[in-house]
Amino acid sequence: MKSKNFQQIFYPASIAVVGATNTPGTVPNDIFTNIMRSGFPGPIYPVSPGNETISGAKAYKYVLDVPHPVDLAVIVFPSSVCSMALEQCGQKGIKAVIIISAGFKETGQKGKEQELKLKTIADKYNMSVIGPNCLGVINADRTIQLNASFARKMPDEGSIGFLSQSGALCTAVLDYALNKLIGFSKFVSFGNKMDINEVDLLQYLFDDEKTKTILLYLEEVSLGKELFELMRKNKNKKPVLALKSGRTSAGMAAAQSHTGSLAGSDEVCDAAFRQMGIIRAKNIEEMFNYAIALTYQPLPKSNRVAIVTNAGGPGVMAADSAIENGLELAKFSPETTEILKNALPRMANIKNPVDVIGDARADRYDAALTSISKDNNVDGIVCILTPQSMTDIESIAQLVCRVEKEMDKPLLCSFMGGTDVASGIRILEERQIPHYTLPESACQSLKTAVRYTNWLLRPESKVKKFEINYSKAKEIIEKSVNDKKSYLTEPSALELMSCYGFPILKHGLAKNPEDAVKIAGDIGFPVVMKIVSSDVLHKSDVGGVLVDLQNSEQVQEGFKKISDAVRAKKQDADILGILVEKMANSGQEVIMGIKRDPSFGAVIMFGSGGIFVELMKDITLRTVPITELDAEEMIKETKSYILLSGFRGAKPSDIQSVKECLERLSQMAMDFPQITELDINPLVVYEKGCHIIDARIMLNVQ
Amino acid sequence: MKSKNFQQIFYPASIAVVGATNTPGTVPNDIFTNIMRSGFPGPIYPVSPGNETISGAKAYKYVLDVPHPVDLAVIVFPSSVCSMALEQCGQKGIKAVIIISAGFKETGQKGKEQELKLKTIADKYNMSVIGPNCLGVINADRTIQLNASFARKMPDEGSIGFLSQSGALCTAVLDYALNKLIGFSKFVSFGNKMDINEVDLLQYLFDDEKTKTILLYLEEVSLGKELFELMRKNKNKKPVLALKSGRTSAGMAAAQSHTGSLAGSDEVCDAAFRQMGIIRAKNIEEMFNYAIALTYQPLPKSNRVAIVTNAGGPGVMAADSAIENGLELAKFSPETTEILKNALPRMANIKNPVDVIGDARADRYDAALTSISKDNNVDGIVCILTPQSMTDIESIAQLVCRVEKEMDKPLLCSFMGGTDVASGIRILEERQIPHYTLPESACQSLKTAVRYTNWLLRPESKVKKFEINYSKAKEIIEKSVNDKKSYLTEPSALELMSCYGFPILKHGLAKNPEDAVKIAGDIGFPVVMKIVSSDVLHKSDVGGVLVDLQNSEQVQEGFKKISDAVRAKKQDADILGILVEKMANSGQEVIMGIKRDPSFGAVIMFGSGGIFVELMKDITLRTVPITELDAEEMIKETKSYILLSGFRGAKPSDIQSVKECLERLSQMAMDFPQITELDINPLVVYEKGCHIIDARIMLNVQ
Repeated sequence: MKSKNFQQIFYPASIAVVGATNTPGTVPNDIFTNIMRSGFPGPIYPVSPGNETISGAKAYKYVLDVPHPVDLAVIVFPSSVCSMALEQCGQKGIKAVIIISAGFKETGQKGKEQELKLKTIADKYNMSVIGPNCLGVINADRTIQLNASFARKMPDEGSIGFLSQSGALCTAVLDYALNKLIGFSKFVSFGNKMDINEVDLLQYLFDDEKTKTILLYLEEVSLGKELFELMRKNKNKKPVLALKSGRTSAGMAAAQSHTGSLAGSDEVCDAAFRQMGIIRAKNIEEMFNYAIALTYQPLPKSNRVAIVTNAGGPGVMAADSAIENGLELAKFSPETTEILKNALPRMANIKNPVDVIGDARADRYDAALTSISKDNNVDGIVCILTPQSMTDIESIAQLVCRVEKEMDKPLLCSFMGGTDVASGIRILEERQIPHYTLPESACQSLKTAVRYTNWLLRPESKVKKFEINYSKAKEIIEKSVNDKKSYLTEPSALELMSCYGFPILKHGLAKNPEDAVKIAGDIGFPVVMKIVSSDVLHKSDVGGVLVDLQNSEQVQEGFKKISDAVRAKKQDADILGILVEKMANSGQEVIMGIKRDPSFGAVIMFGSGGIFVELMKDITLRTVPITELDAEEMIKETKSYILLSGFRGAKPSDIQSVKECLERLSQMAMDFPQITELDINPLVVYEKGCHIIDARIMLNVQ
Repeated sequence: MKSKNFQQIFYPASIAVVGATNTPGTVPNDIFTNIMRSGFPGPIYPVSPGNETISGAKAYKYVLDVPHPVDLAVIVFPSSVCSMALEQCGQKGIKAVIIISAGFKETGQKGKEQELKLKTIADKYNMSVIGPNCLGVINADRTIQLNASFARKMPDEGSIGFLSQSGALCTAVLDYALNKLIGFSKFVSFGNKMDINEVDLLQYLFDDEKTKTILLYLEEVSLGKELFELMRKNKNKKPVLALKSGRTSAGMAAAQSHTGSLAGSDEVCDAAFRQMGIIRAKNIEEMFNYAIALTYQPLPKSNRVAIVTNAGGPGVMAADSAIENGLELAKFSPETTEILKNALPRMANIKNPVDVIGDARADRYDAALTSISKDNNVDGIVCILTPQSMTDIESIAQLVCRVEKEMDKPLLCSFMGGTDVASGIRILEERQIPHYTLPESACQSLKTAVRYTNWLLRPESKVKKFEINYSKAKEIIEKSVNDKKSYLTEPSALELMSCYGFPILKHGLAKNPEDAVKIAGDIGFPVVMKIVSSDVLHKSDVGGVLVDLQNSEQVQEGFKKISDAVRAKKQDADILGILVEKMANSGQEVIMGIKRDPSFGAVIMFGSGGIFVELMKDITLRTVPITELDAEEMIKETKSYILLSGFRGAKPSDIQSVKECLERLSQMAMDFPQITELDINPLVVYEKGCHIIDARIMLNVQ
C-alpha cells in the first residue's frame, strides 16, 4: 500500500478550489464559501476560468497561475474537464486532491473510463485523491477548522471519526449529530474511492490522536481482505462501528444501481465484521447510540447493570431490555442497600431497578446514584427520569453530571418525553453524558459496550499449522484442474481430505464384482457401495448407492445392481468403478465446508447436520484463516454444540476432533484457492473421533 | 359487567376536587389548577377542610357542603381519609369518582384492606371509580377540555385514546406526544383499578366517537379472558395497540414489586394478543410510530411499497428494512416509469427505490410522488429526504402535504437529520402526515398497517363442535379427581383421548403374562409394553418400557422383565398391570398439549416433535377455544408444517388430521377445567391419519 498524503488532505497549509463559481446554492460556490467561513486559517485560491473574483477573492484562470504553493486542490468542475484540471494540479506539484464532481464510475462505462484516466494522472504525479463523486472532507480539529465539503454546516469538534461511502447520507448524519451536540474529529465522504479508499482512511483515523471512535458507512465491502488485515494490525486500538446497508437482495440491488459495485453475501459480511471486532449497527440511530456510549464513557468491566428511575413502568421496561440484551441486574451490596433504605422514602423500591418514586427531586437521585456508583457489584448505570409535575429536571441533570464526573463506570441516561425534558437533556449532551429517548436504547448501548469489553478481553488465539501432505494434495487438485474436471471424484476427494489429516473410512475402488468382494473382505462388513463417475453428481438419484451390505454375496450382487441402474439412467456415463467403503457407525452429524465470497475470499461454514441445516439454517461462518478459538466459537454458536455436548443424557461427542477438522479445513482453503466450494456432509462425530461420510469438492478449472 | 358512569367521568357538568390545597407544586393543588386552567366550562368546587378559598375560589369544608349537584369528584386526600371522603361523595349522590391518592394495594396488606373498604363504599352508592393511585383523567375533546390529572400539560385534541396502568409513565408519554404534535381523545391513568379497569375503559373507547385508535400500556394482564371477550365483541372496530412490559422474568419481578400483581407467561400474552388482533409494540416509540400510521393514514390494500428518496444510501436502507419487514418493493407500471423518466434527470434512478438525486427540489418530488401515488401497483409510499445544501425542505414538506391530500394510500415520511429538517418535519406533523426519524421506522410502521389490513381481511372461522363421549370422559376425570390421583394412568389417559375422538393405538391392560400374550395376539405384532402404575411417572427410567416385541415368547418374557425391573427399582409400587399396545409405524412426529395460564386460562400448545421442540423451542400457543383457522395457522407457524408438507421429497402427511386433533383438544380444554396440563408427545402423523403414542394428563385434585 503506497502511503497517502493525508497531511495535505486534512491539514493543508493552502487550498485551491478548482472550478469555483459565484452562483450561490451551487456546489462549486458552496464549497468555496464553506472553506472560507469554516475558519480555515491558510490561504484559499479560487480557480475559475470565467471569473475575475469569487466571493470577492481574486480568482485564477488555471491552478497553474496560482503564484504560491498549494497543498490541497478541491476540484468542483463538471466531470468533462476534471482530467484537465487534475493534470494541471499534478504539474503544479499539488500532492492532495479532493474531487467533488460526480459523473464517473457511478454513471456507467464511459464514466468508468474517465475515472480511470483520472487515476492514471494521479499516479503519474503521485497525487492522493479523495473521490470523485463525494461530499468532501471536514476536519473539525480546532487548529484548522476545515470544511472542504458542501455540507450545510460545520460540525462541532469531537472525537468521533466518520467515513461514508454515500455523500448524500452525510448531510443527514451531520444534521442528526448537530441536533444531539455530537461532534466529530474528521468527517469524510469518500465517494467512488478511485485512489484513497475506506481502508486507507481507517488506518489514518486509527493513527489520528483526535479520533477515539470510528464510524463507517458502507454500501458494499469491496476490500474485505484489506479490511481484515487492517483490523488485525490495529486490534483493540479504537472501537470501529459499521453501518452496512444492502442487507437484503432488494437492498443490494438498490445499492448496486446506486454505487455500481458488486456485493458479497451479507451473512459473510456479518460474520467477518464480528471476526474483526467491528461492531455492526442496523441504522444511523443505533450507530450513534453505540458511538456515544463507547466514546463518552469508560467501558463497563462486566454486564451487571443498575437501573435508577422515578417511574416504575420505565423501570420494568429497562429491566426487560437489560435481560433481553444479555445484561444482568446488579445485586447491591449490603452497604448500598442500607444507604438506599435510609435515603429513600419507605414506598421506594430499593432493589434493582431502584424506584426513587415520582415525587423525587435531585437529592434522591443523588443518594441513589452516588451510592450505586460506588458499589463493586455494579458495572454500569442506566438513569431514567420521567417529567412528573414536581420533577426538577435541570437540577437532576446537573446532579447527574456531578456524579458522572466521579465515576469510573459508564452512566447512560434516558430522560423520557420530549418538550419538558429537553432542557435537562441538553445539559447532559453538553457534558457528553450519553442520552437516549428510550431506556431500551440505553440498555442496548450498554450491552454493546459490554460486548466490546469482551472483545478486548478475548484471549489471543493462534492459527494452527498442521503437518499435511501438501505435494500429494497439490497433485490431486492439479490433475483435476488439468483434466478440466470441476468436481473431484469421490476417491480423489477422500484422498485429498486424507492428505489434510481428515479421518476417512476405509475404502477401495472396485473395477469389477470380484474386486469389490475382495475390498469388502479387507475392510470388513458392513460396507457401502457408491458409483464413481464424473458424469454422475447425484449418485442416489440414479440408483448409484447401496448401504449396509452385510456379506460377499450382497456386495457381488450390489456391483451389478449399481452398474445396471446407472447404465439404465445414464447410458454413456464414464464409470470409473464402484467405491466400496466401510459403513460408518451412527453418531452425531455435523456439516462443514468452504465457500468463496467476492469480498472476503474463502469462508469456512459449520453447522448442525441433517434436517437442522436445511430447515433451521443453523450454520455459522468465518473467513479464513480461523484460529483455534474461532473454531471453538463456531461450534458453540450452533445448536450442534448442545447435541455434541451430550443431549438428553447421551454421551458427549468428540468436540475436539470437530474443532481440529475446522482448522484443517481453514488451512486447506488457504492453501488451495482453486477450491471454490467444498461440502462435508455429514461428518459423523463419535465419543472418540469422527469420520467424513461424504465430501463434495468443486474446483475452479477456468 | 355492571355499566360504569363514564359520562360523568369524561363529560361531567360539575366537579368537586376533594382535598385541594393552596401549596403550589403539590398534587392536590396541581389537580385543582389543572382543571381550572384546562378550559373546563362547568363549575369546579374545591373541598378543603382547612382553607376558606383555593386559588381564590370559595372552598367547602366537606363535599356535602357543596350546595349544588356534583357529577364528578376527584379525591386527592391522603389515603388515610379517603374512605371518609368517598363515603361523603356517596351521600352527596356523586356517581363518578377519580381517586388520585396513592398508598393502597401497591403498599402491601394494610393498603389492600383500605382499598377493599373503598370498593365497598363505592358499591354501596353505585359509584364508578377510577384509581386509586393514578395520575388522573384527561378528556381533550374541545367541547369539554378536561384535565383532571396532575400531568404538567394538557395534550392537544386528537383521535388517539390512551390507557395506562402506570401513572408515572403517562407524564413521559404526554411529553413525548406533545413534542411530536400527537393529540389524544381521552387519556386515562387507571392505577390500581379497584373499580373501573382497562377492559371497561377499552369498551368505552371502542364506543367513543372521538377515538380512532386505542393505545394501552399494561404491566400485567389480569383480565385476559375479559379482554378476549371484549376484543371479540368489537372485532375490527378500531386498532388497539398494546405495550406490555414485564416480558422477562426480571422485568416481571420488577413489575410485581411495582404493581403488586401476579403475571402470566409472556409467551402466552404474546400469542393471545395476536389471536385477539391486538398489535403489540416493544416500546413507547414503536407504539406511537404504529399509532400515527394507523390513525393518520388510510390502510394499505397490500404490501407493495414505493420508496422515494433524494439520497441513495437511505434508499438502500429503506429497501433493506422494507424487505426485512415483509413488504415488497412495488414494480411501477409502464406509465409511471415513463413519467419518471421524463420528469427526472438522466442520472436519477427511476426504479424503486426512486432516487430523485441530491439536488432535487420540490418539483422533482412532486413529479415522483404524484405519479407513484396513482400507480395501481403501489399500496403505500415511504418518502425520504436528506438535507442537501440545495434542498428546499419546507417547500418539499408542503408539496408532500398537497400530494397526500389527494391520495387514498398511506404516505409515510422520513426527513432525516435533526436541526435543518426540523421545520419541514413540523409542517408534516401539523398536517398529520406520519414522520419518522429513520426510514426503517417508516417501513416497520407500514408493515404494521399491512398486518392490520390482513387482520381485518382474515376470513371468519368458527369453533367446531365435535361429537364426543362426554359422560365417559367426565367419569374418567372425576374418578381420578376423587381418588386424589393427579396423573391419569396411561390406559385412562388413552381412553379419555379416545372419548374425544383422538386416534389411539389398539391396546389392552395385562394383569399377567398370559393376558399379555392374548392381547398381543388379538391386536397383532409387533407390540410395545409399558408398566402401568400411579407410582411410576417416568416409565423408561425404571425399565418399564419394552418396544418392538415380535412374538408371543418375547411378550411373555417381557412381562416378567418389566415387572422385575420395576420391582427392583420401586419395591412398593402399586402396579396396575402392563399395557400391551400395538407398535406404531414411523411417521412425522408432532406434539400438542394444554397448559393453564393465570391470565388467559387454558392454552393450546403445538410444536414440532422430538429434538426440535427441546432444542429449538419450535412451538406455538393459542388460548382456547381455537377456530379451524387458528388450528391451521398454528401448524403453519412451526417448522413442522414444512416437515408435514413433505420435506426432502417425502410424501405429505395428513395435516388435516393434526388440525382436527388441535380443535378436539381445544374442546377438551374448554370442557374440563380440571385438566391443568396435558401433553401428547408424540402424535405420529402418517400419509393418512395419525396416532397418539403417549399422553400424559395432569388434573387438579385439590
